[in-house]
Amino acid sequence: MPRKTRGGEAKQAGHPTRRVRYSVAMSLDGFIAGPGGEADWILMDPEIDFNAMYGRFDTIVMGRRSFEAMSRAGEGGSQPGMQVFVVSRTLRQADHPNVMVIDDPERLMAELRSKQGKDVWLWGGGSLFRSFAELELVDTVEVAVIPVLLGAGVPLLPPPTKRVTLKLTGHKLYAKTGTMSLEYAVQYGRGAQRRR
Amino acid sequence: MPRKTRGGEAKQAGHPTRRVRYSVAMSLDGFIAGPGGEADWILMDPEIDFNAMYGRFDTIVMGRRSFEAMSRAGEGGSQPGMQVFVVSRTLRQADHPNVMVIDDPERLMAELRSKQGKDVWLWGGGSLFRSFAELELVDTVEVAVIPVLLGAGVPLLPPPTKRVTLKLTGHKLYAKTGTMSLEYAVQYGRGAQRRR
Repeated sequence: MPRKTRGGEAKQAGHPTRRVRYSVAMSLDGFIAGPGGEADWILMDPEIDFNAMYGRFDTIVMGRRSFEAMSRAGEGGSQPGMQVFVVSRTLRQADHPNVMVIDDPERLMAELRSKQGKDVWLWGGGSLFRSFAELELVDTVEVAVIPVLLGAGVPLLPPPTKRVTLKLTGHKLYAKTGTMSLEYAVQYGRGAQRRR
Repeated sequence: MPRKTRGGEAKQAGHPTRRVRYSVAMSLDGFIAGPGGEADWILMDPEIDFNAMYGRFDTIVMGRRSFEAMSRAGEGGSQPGMQVFVVSRTLRQADHPNVMVIDDPERLMAELRSKQGKDVWLWGGGSLFRSFAELELVDTVEVAVIPVLLGAGVPLLPPPTKRVTLKLTGHKLYAKTGTMSLEYAVQYGRGAQRRR
């Protein structure tokens, strides 16, 4: 079924099924990392098919903070089979040959949508999601709800922001760990019509 | 099956199946009310059987702030068929004849558990839940996840607090509104054994 909710000439000429998906693990109380960036609370359910999950994407877009956290972890930012874009106004491209440093999310997304490809993974970083959501560039929010309350940490959607209306489009229970995966479409504007 | 995880003489002598349940509606990003206390984002799914839900409880415990919000809404704090306790160190019993004002949650819970009865509803108020959870007085967390991101508001579990481990015990989808109800048992201490 063609996506009728995405307007604009460039988008109609492009590949509207190439979705931008904010896919994260989250504590029940809405944090995607602990107060010190901890991820030790994230349960790796053996039933989650990570290969299949990664296989749905060919592009990762992350914020500077996520990139720096990955770099500190020795991962250097590169991901096999993925093109990685880092949104930053301060990083210099020459210092980071493994990734593409970009400063204009809207232009990046217009370019990505104009090409054929797999989905785009909005990777970590609540504030990256916020800026993308405010630009109405996010198609889905996909949250693996881990059975824990952290009480503090990096929020799924940091303030200040406006309310974001969602529509539940799918769910899957991973029974071994009690992880509930919830998939939502982001609803922009009235009656789920995009404003742009 | 007897609940083996609850220790202590008073509790063994009581009615251990009388559970204390923190049951709330929550935005996907972990808020139980908006920044100004708003509840207009809470979708009332027609499939939710509110009578059955209320019928499982005969006691409500709420914090002062929730009580004052209800009082402002003209509800006066009384609920048909429910005994209402308000946890407060400042309210005076004489001013609030419809409810029982108490200042010692542990003593209240010991008393409630010593009597036969239905479950106890921990009503609203993230900070009330926090203090009850720190005293290990909460049995379940039951969250109706509403498909919305608020970005700010009253958190499910306000900081500062320690991490709370949960175990998913049930879920139910309300398809008309996309509300996902998630039920968790609170796991205290190691291997789900209570420390006290």
